[in-house]
Amino acid sequence: MAELARTGANVLATRVADASVEAVLKMVPGARHEKVARAVVVEQQPIADIGRGTVLIVSAGTSDLPVAEEAALTARLAGNRVERLVDVGVAGIHRLLGSRAALEASSVIVVVAGMEGALPSVVAGLTSRPVVAVPTSIGYGASFGGIAALLGMLNSCAAGVTVVNIDNGFGAGYAASLINRKVDAK
Amino acid sequence: MAELARTGANVLATRVADASVEAVLKMVPGARHEKVARAVVVEQQPIADIGRGTVLIVSAGTSDLPVAEEAALTARLAGNRVERLVDVGVAGIHRLLGSRAALEASSVIVVVAGMEGALPSVVAGLTSRPVVAVPTSIGYGASFGGIAALLGMLNSCAAGVTVVNIDNGFGAGYAASLINRKVDAK
Amino acid sequence: MAELARTGANVLATRVADASVEAVLKMVPGARHEKVARAVVVEQQPIADIGRGTVLIVSAGTSDLPVAEEAALTARLAGNRVERLVDVGVAGIHRLLGSRAALEASSVIVVVAGMEGALPSVVAGLTSRPVVAVPTSIGYGASFGGIAALLGMLNSCAAGVTVVNIDNGFGAGYAASLINRKVDAK
Amino acid sequence: MAELARTGANVLATRVADASVEAVLKMVPGARHEKVARAVVVEQQPIADIGRGTVLIVSAGTSDLPVAEEAALTARLAGNRVERLVDVGVAGIHRLLGSRAALEASSVIVVVAGMEGALPSVVAGLTSRPVVAVPTSIGYGASFGGIAALLGMLNSCAAGVTVVNIDNGFGAGYAASLINRKVDAK
Amino acid sequence: MAELARTGANVLATRVADASVEAVLKMVPGARHEKVARAVVVEQQPIADIGRGTVLIVSAGTSDLPVAEEAALTARLAGNRVERLVDVGVAGIHRLLGSRAALEASSVIVVVAGMEGALPSVVAGLTSRPVVAVPTSIGYGASFGGIAALLGMLNSCAAGVTVVNIDNGFGAGYAASLINRKVDAK
Amino acid sequence: MAELARTGANVLATRVADASVEAVLKMVPGARHEKVARAVVVEQQPIADIGRGTVLIVSAGTSDLPVAEEAALTARLAGNRVERLVDVGVAGIHRLLGSRAALEASSVIVVVAGMEGALPSVVAGLTSRPVVAVPTSIGYGASFGGIAALLGMLNSCAAGVTVVNIDNGFGAGYAASLINRKVDAK
Amino acid sequence: MAELARTGANVLATRVADASVEAVLKMVPGARHEKVARAVVVEQQPIADIGRGTVLIVSAGTSDLPVAEEAALTARLAGNRVERLVDVGVAGIHRLLGSRAALEASSVIVVVAGMEGALPSVVAGLTSRPVVAVPTSIGYGASFGGIAALLGMLNSCAAGVTVVNIDNGFGAGYAASLINRKVDAK
Amino acid sequence: MAELARTGANVLATRVADASVEAVLKMVPGARHEKVARAVVVEQQPIADIGRGTVLIVSAGTSDLPVAEEAALTARLAGNRVERLVDVGVAGIHRLLGSRAALEASSVIVVVAGMEGALPSVVAGLTSRPVVAVPTSIGYGASFGGIAALLGMLNSCAAGVTVVNIDNGFGAGYAASLINRKVDAK
Repeated sequence: MAELARTGANVLATRVADASVEAVLKMVPGARHEKVARAVVVEQQPIADIGRGTVLIVSAGTSDLPVAEEAALTARLAGNRVERLVDVGVAGIHRLLGSRAALEASSVIVVVAGMEGALPSVVAGLTSRPVVAVPTSIGYGASFGGIAALLGMLNSCAAGVTVVNIDNGFGAGYAASLINRKVDAK
Repeated sequence: MAELARTGANVLATRVADASVEAVLKMVPGARHEKVARAVVVEQQPIADIGRGTVLIVSAGTSDLPVAEEAALTARLAGNRVERLVDVGVAGIHRLLGSRAALEASSVIVVVAGMEGALPSVVAGLTSRPVVAVPTSIGYGASFGGIAALLGMLNSCAAGVTVVNIDNGFGAGYAASLINRKVDAK
Repeated sequence: MAELARTGANVLATRVADASVEAVLKMVPGARHEKVARAVVVEQQPIADIGRGTVLIVSAGTSDLPVAEEAALTARLAGNRVERLVDVGVAGIHRLLGSRAALEASSVIVVVAGMEGALPSVVAGLTSRPVVAVPTSIGYGASFGGIAALLGMLNSCAAGVTVVNIDNGFGAGYAASLINRKVDAK
Repeated sequence: MAELARTGANVLATRVADASVEAVLKMVPGARHEKVARAVVVEQQPIADIGRGTVLIVSAGTSDLPVAEEAALTARLAGNRVERLVDVGVAGIHRLLGSRAALEASSVIVVVAGMEGALPSVVAGLTSRPVVAVPTSIGYGASFGGIAALLGMLNSCAAGVTVVNIDNGFGAGYAASLINRKVDAK
Repeated sequence: MAELARTGANVLATRVADASVEAVLKMVPGARHEKVARAVVVEQQPIADIGRGTVLIVSAGTSDLPVAEEAALTARLAGNRVERLVDVGVAGIHRLLGSRAALEASSVIVVVAGMEGALPSVVAGLTSRPVVAVPTSIGYGASFGGIAALLGMLNSCAAGVTVVNIDNGFGAGYAASLINRKVDAK
Repeated sequence: MAELARTGANVLATRVADASVEAVLKMVPGARHEKVARAVVVEQQPIADIGRGTVLIVSAGTSDLPVAEEAALTARLAGNRVERLVDVGVAGIHRLLGSRAALEASSVIVVVAGMEGALPSVVAGLTSRPVVAVPTSIGYGASFGGIAALLGMLNSCAAGVTVVNIDNGFGAGYAASLINRKVDAK
Repeated sequence: MAELARTGANVLATRVADASVEAVLKMVPGARHEKVARAVVVEQQPIADIGRGTVLIVSAGTSDLPVAEEAALTARLAGNRVERLVDVGVAGIHRLLGSRAALEASSVIVVVAGMEGALPSVVAGLTSRPVVAVPTSIGYGASFGGIAALLGMLNSCAAGVTVVNIDNGFGAGYAASLINRKVDAK
Repeated sequence: MAELARTGANVLATRVADASVEAVLKMVPGARHEKVARAVVVEQQPIADIGRGTVLIVSAGTSDLPVAEEAALTARLAGNRVERLVDVGVAGIHRLLGSRAALEASSVIVVVAGMEGALPSVVAGLTSRPVVAVPTSIGYGASFGGIAALLGMLNSCAAGVTVVNIDNGFGAGYAASLINRKVDAK
């Protein structure tokens, strides 16, 4: 990471174990810890705004926040405006319904959820924006480390949902960034 | 079945293959075919109303109707008033939201859904009635014959949901009937 | 939790790791540790009896007790009279048979079992009360962390059994409470 | 089969499809069809009694009979006295309890069951005879073609249970015969 | 379908079994059969071009063509220019490499592959366009009806890949269309 | 355990973690540690010989020894003469072939193997004694904690093999003891 | 196929359904049906012998023959001398042991087996030749269409075994041919 | 290991935990630690060159190196010349394409990859050498500890690929050595 940072570029390291954060911060000058996202960032270049619109990150529960923040951080560093909508799980559907304007105001939506993974279906039913769904490993027993949420998202009854690997906030943020790009951007 | 019917009792046969319906109807006097529920019924006794309230059967899509009707038929023959709420899948959440009064007016709710099986979570979040969830085998690919819906329901983020086997409309209707019984009923 | 307790309500925290109990008890005035149930409770309001009858908690083996107690505690705090029947696994069927009166005296039964998960089938065969089955992760090898028990319960040959997630004592106690409610209770 | 029969020995063919029975009976002189067991037998030698005691075949439901009869036929042709106890599923536990004498009077017990596969646990808890458990593919949905019953039997909470493959009546009958043999038999 | 067509809108029916095509064509005036895509289309309105650029459909083998054509048809009817790149499986990597210009000339790429499902990873490594991956059920044995390809795509070592359900050409075409839309399109 | 030992009976505790052995030995007078079998035994009654013959314990590799010894110890304490045949895995088939006399000299054989679990098939092909197969969790990767061995044993091409749960040395030793009993033993 | 044959090359079509054989033979002049291998071959060029030695095809049971013959045919058409060793399953280990000379006389061995898939382990233990293992879908119940055999082979306790997909006789024959090639062959 | 080393032979111990390396080095004179390969080697005999050509070890990512080095070390100690090609994952396909000469210059290729496991398919498509594929457990979520890579390799669309167990570098190196042997080598 220190090596990459020396090139002067912005650098993002995800899934940094708590135990190694301090060592990383010492070795990489200018690095900062994004605690919730479990990431370390070196931001030494201004971030251009390359997107057509806003990347909206929607998450179901408090435990899904680290994955959601990893997606948000990835999208922002890749040059996108990022908005967030948190704690809108399907068991309390009215919180989500009160935010429909935010859904339509975005150009792509990342939806992060564990347990039964139902949130992307509901979101996709409410909007015409592309939805990138991220299953999380939140749950126990028959959640099988995120398989239940993954299968739920792959079988969404709402069209327009695509899915990434369990807990893959980086992949979702990166894909959302590609989707949000102006076509003539390199 | 003919033997049971001769005792004078009401008889319910579920999962009757289309090919054998005609033969069954011929051999069992007074039998009638419940086409959607794929069942054959002999109703020769008046059905007592043993329940405290209404059993509400909620289903997500058109393909889930046979399982929903099997549950409805089972509950009614066991002595319950039965109401239905159909085609309220989570991709079009407003149809369900317009029916909240019906949810609270029931004493137990059976929710039937395939694909990602998200409907019971949303229903349980909207009401304080016990929810019996029935995953159906509707779907393809990674729905794995109903496993995706089954796992979704077992991992519901809303409390108050219990689950029966895939396509087990009979079991859900029977359990709902036990739940709806007056305690001093035998 | 401290925040919730400050509202004056009763509060229940389940799955509290042994390591954090002491810290929780210090931070939350009036909290007490329910050791077997692995829960911490703040009970500062009298518990109303909102139920039609008794919630009976049946468990198979000693290792199933924590999940059974989580269900019992949840049901009691939600306003139900709770009875227990412990150590009645199917390998010693006569202990269960000697308690048939207790089964019929309840209005809803929660059955907790690991390994092959056969107990709910036998209980449901002995009574006409609704049975909420809880598979536990007790077992090894081909128990697959509770999958064997979960599948056993979903495939019960006795009607009237519904199932919750593996080790989900809270969910079973909560569902039993909804089932036991008087219909006109809010 | 005709070839084997020409040697003068007794011959057993299991899993004979209904469609080919007639052809087999025509080609093999002296063959008879065991309809329930789905087998064809040529019995041209007296069957010696090589066993120490009786092989008892216990089955749970009507649909389990073909597998149970395959086990019974195999054990009898291998030189054992065979008894049967049918339709004693765990949802109606009293039928089984009324037959405890038969259990103890045998020297080895084959237990055949589908769905949740709980019967071998209960039988093994009632007797000190070795129990050979046969899961059947009877069930639907989360029975997964007999996996639920297989896992249930492998995780039996009662000691003394060993298991064969799904629907393997022949294997169970053969193993029971080896168990029932006098040690000095070849 | 006839009902929908009577509204004057364009209609797309996917997964039409060969056996029912003729009946459908008779009942729905103006309908035409898209044989490879296994679809029936009623095209009675001019198709507006709502997209920012081209949707490129890439497929690995001949057996993947029906799913690829379902995606292409869906995207075109939703108002997109569609290009195709067929028979560029990874075992003959040079065919794909010769088409890099086509990859960059698109604004979103749908990649359809069965067996090991490796094609999306290679495509995403060659371009900066978003890739929607569709696993197909092509394969046998340990392909498990498309699970091998699905897992391969979810675990892609190249960022920017999102995935839909097995054989879900419609879902991929629909998601690609949402991605290709101008942001201010409704 | 101390409580059981106070009754004067012989007591066997299996799967005793290394960390708790010392504590157990201190609390239970007369207890001894069987290190390889990972068991603690209190042997205060003479062990009667209740068997018809010898229980032979066959194991494939060095890593399978703890499970094999658990089976051996269980069978001996239950009143059987026990013999052992170790390190006769199928990759070195001649070691096993040199021991055929020992196989026939037993009255029941317990075969313990991990990895591909092929040993019981070979043993059952060499002898007419009943074979109780124990899959172990020895292996890595696609052994899936013993599932590969378990499936191998359930699908044995040799008749006469029955199977217990993964690593269940106790269950195998107990079943072997029941099989080895004289019929008139209680 | 006709097209390929017109180039004058030798052509091999595997997995030809019985129903389409006649049509294929009519359309492709010079084609012949290899019935056991379920293949159609056009052999119009002399087959060069490109190998260093012999490819030996070993199979366990009669039902494994079609896959074994597919491997044999593939290897021969690719320019190898092919020998066969059939019906040497591990339940009758002496038949295999009598053929050790044939094993060492080959330069590569393809081993085809279903059920528990134990044969490759035993073969690899007897020889120093590379072993290509082919699991077949022969079996029922917990063989899961060849998964049991596949896992058995992947977990072989004998080094030198590599594995191909279930029923993939073609892949095994092709790999064996590459292994048997002289290094300077193109 | 010390015992084996005393015989004067070369000895290889794989999968040596970091914690026990120091102890092993102390107890076995002449032993050296191969850190990346996680192995300990005693090399006290000159290594003969028994091979026909070179064993080439190809690996996809940095995390795959330990398994690749285990394969390389195994092949070299068994008497083969070994070459390496590292960091040629399919997301950057041009690195691999620049090394085609190295592929053809070898006599057998071991390909090590995690995640989607696509590399062996691409390699086998570029060369006519036999490919031994090793899936690694590198990945997370739906990689399921290497299952995704394993399935990808078993379903390779390129002929000539055979597969070993997850992380089994030793098995791949050993098989490659057998393949590379001169036929008349013992």
